[in-house]
Amino acid sequence: MATPQNPQTFLEGIIAKRDGEELSEQFYSRFIHSIGEGVVPDYQVSAFLMAVYLRGLSEGEMLALTEGIVDSGKRIAFPNIKLPLVDKHSTGGVGDKVSFLVGPLVAACGVAVPLTAGRGLGHTGGTIDKLESIPGIKTQLSVEEMERVLAQAGWLIAAQGPELAPADGVLYRLRDATGTVASLPLIASSIMGKKLAVENDALVLDVKFGRGAFMAQVERARELGKAMVAIAEGAGRSCRALLTNMDQPLGFAVGNSLELGEAVKLLRALPGSPSDVVEVTLALGAQMLILAGIVEGEPEGRERLEEAWVKGWGYERLFSLVSAQGGDVSFIEDTEKFTEASKKTAFKAPRDGYIIAMDAYQIGELARSMGAGRESMEDEIDHSAGLVFSAKVGDEVEVGEELVELHFNRGSESDYLTRVEKAVLIGDEPPEELPLILEVLK
Amino acid sequence: MATPQNPQTFLEGIIAKRDGEELSEQFYSRFIHSIGEGVVPDYQVSAFLMAVYLRGLSEGEMLALTEGIVDSGKRIAFPNIKLPLVDKHSTGGVGDKVSFLVGPLVAACGVAVPLTAGRGLGHTGGTIDKLESIPGIKTQLSVEEMERVLAQAGWLIAAQGPELAPADGVLYRLRDATGTVASLPLIASSIMGKKLAVENDALVLDVKFGRGAFMAQVERARELGKAMVAIAEGAGRSCRALLTNMDQPLGFAVGNSLELGEAVKLLRALPGSPSDVVEVTLALGAQMLILAGIVEGEPEGRERLEEAWVKGWGYERLFSLVSAQGGDVSFIEDTEKFTEASKKTAFKAPRDGYIIAMDAYQIGELARSMGAGRESMEDEIDHSAGLVFSAKVGDEVEVGEELVELHFNRGSESDYLTRVEKAVLIGDEPPEELPLILEVLK
Repeated sequence: MATPQNPQTFLEGIIAKRDGEELSEQFYSRFIHSIGEGVVPDYQVSAFLMAVYLRGLSEGEMLALTEGIVDSGKRIAFPNIKLPLVDKHSTGGVGDKVSFLVGPLVAACGVAVPLTAGRGLGHTGGTIDKLESIPGIKTQLSVEEMERVLAQAGWLIAAQGPELAPADGVLYRLRDATGTVASLPLIASSIMGKKLAVENDALVLDVKFGRGAFMAQVERARELGKAMVAIAEGAGRSCRALLTNMDQPLGFAVGNSLELGEAVKLLRALPGSPSDVVEVTLALGAQMLILAGIVEGEPEGRERLEEAWVKGWGYERLFSLVSAQGGDVSFIEDTEKFTEASKKTAFKAPRDGYIIAMDAYQIGELARSMGAGRESMEDEIDHSAGLVFSAKVGDEVEVGEELVELHFNRGSESDYLTRVEKAVLIGDEPPEELPLILEVLK
Repeated sequence: MATPQNPQTFLEGIIAKRDGEELSEQFYSRFIHSIGEGVVPDYQVSAFLMAVYLRGLSEGEMLALTEGIVDSGKRIAFPNIKLPLVDKHSTGGVGDKVSFLVGPLVAACGVAVPLTAGRGLGHTGGTIDKLESIPGIKTQLSVEEMERVLAQAGWLIAAQGPELAPADGVLYRLRDATGTVASLPLIASSIMGKKLAVENDALVLDVKFGRGAFMAQVERARELGKAMVAIAEGAGRSCRALLTNMDQPLGFAVGNSLELGEAVKLLRALPGSPSDVVEVTLALGAQMLILAGIVEGEPEGRERLEEAWVKGWGYERLFSLVSAQGGDVSFIEDTEKFTEASKKTAFKAPRDGYIIAMDAYQIGELARSMGAGRESMEDEIDHSAGLVFSAKVGDEVEVGEELVELHFNRGSESDYLTRVEKAVLIGDEPPEELPLILEVLK
């Protein structure tokens, strides 16, 4: 590609991108700021987004767009935190409660972990929604509060507020309305724009692929991971991305308080079952410790994390976070305290055989219908709704054996059971085992 | 391409077009109507336009889009006119005053010619603006008035009112703001949407190519012509398109009253000089007579037109139109009555040689700067401003010989002269002769 164009008006930028030209850093820095301020008309932004969708962005443009998104809002820094700061981000999966495990465990190993996250929209849940199952917990934190929580608990979970990367809000709303959400460079810059607005030294990404992932195809997930790593490195942050499987839900529970409860119980047990949650936690956590400079390699990282886990330090850090963010810690001490849904029903194996698939996408959509997720940003979450599995893909089951417990307050039991039956496939032969963690992108 | 998609929402339509799918007739018929009513948000329309720009439209889609544009507004019909109705449209050129010649001549041969036109924007002039050089003339006509003018004069020139094809107005405004004007299917459907809203049996198109044309490249002009012919035929109108050269201005005059004056004088003379105007008039007119079923072939058509010309019937019809549309006919009887610009200056040949180019685009832009055209739709036209050439490409000239007279009320004489000098190239050898009329598309 030739030298990047440096258009003086946004219209000229649309035209250049329409023709597949590369645009300059100055273009993005000037106009993404204007977009954040609402100065560029929506109809021009959306034409630009469609041109980007169809023409793509170079690596340099992705970085410039991301920096533009960061600069459209406030930057959050923690000048008083002297520990290495390492963040973790997942592209979103069904039953993904890993933040509640890896955050406190890595913090217990001497790393400050400032997790910022959005709310759930779509078939995957949001970390903020899950955390808000705890009465009293505060997720909208000022910078001062974030620093205090980091100091007290070693980690924090805060909602990405409107002062962070406002241009991303405009872009996302228009992408959603114009069929341009699924553009790889737009996804990468949207995620990274919010992540890079918060100070850290390094970032580990959990990029999901498979049925329940935003990017179902592993090639697309790999591309996305590479793009995000390039953006982070371009912005001066160390970064690694793990490609992890999201064909079936992670762990046993899907739904807000159900997942949080599962995470708490896991943290209190030795690293045990379900093994997929444990494995992803250790793999991500080890990379975080490596980038923090705490350990040399993955085996050492896993050892440190397992020690923190076995000795209960992870649980202590989770307890500290809930306390520091104003939550009722008794819910952590006794997860039976979470309000249960008014209705529970069991889905039983309709035949003997092996579970060959549990379609994470269908299960995520089902959980959303049951109230665990939102159809639109205005919807209220039902924290008690969701599903608890008692088997995983590959398990041998007998007819009549309970496989899933459905928890809900609304909707039709028979409809839900029909949908579970469609999502859980049982066959005669055990399925081929898929790798849970495919590779690490650096 | 597979069966056309029939999306139920406009967003689904954007996504399908983004992915290069063909969309159904029902989609266009439903949503273009909504666009005309302003119901579809601008930001969705503009994303759709960019997707169309980059993905294109099938012939069937172009027709469906055009019919949707027509149906967004009123249709104008002339139930009491028993003559064949034939319209003519030019894609726009510099110095193009052919409507004032071909309209009355074809009308004099027994065809009803309802010319509807827009105002000039860009470097080419508009027929309505030119006609409005005549004091008192009315160009905003009701359907009843149109029918009366057609009955009295055999032809009419009316401004395309806001009740015609309102969806095109929305689409054009957004195309202009999003760099999607130059999409061939969007151009074709925009032109044809307004044309087909007015009843006629047939339509002859003058598709310009060359420096001063909207489509400079002959291949693009040919594609546009073919698309428009296909749309017209698809809508049940007979249609032919002529590809005509627009490298240099047509005729001698460029500017509103100057062009109208030239046309009137030409109609009063035998078909004479400048020969390019005469040639395009006869070629277009002959096709109109063929499609009207008045003559068998082009030679016969030309004969009939020349007869009408020589016998003064064309002039009479122009006179009748001005009278029927309320204009002061004394300006037609004596074109010296047009207000002259306050300043006139001559551009003289800076050297001996042959005129090898008169850049129609530069000359059109210059005329616009002088006041003959608009920078924005709100601008007032200066009807007296413009240029009158006394030579054409290929002519031999002597140093100091007057080549152009500039007429203006505003701006800088020296700037204008510099710009004329850049537009009029003189060389040592006569240039290769280019065909004026390249081909007829059926």
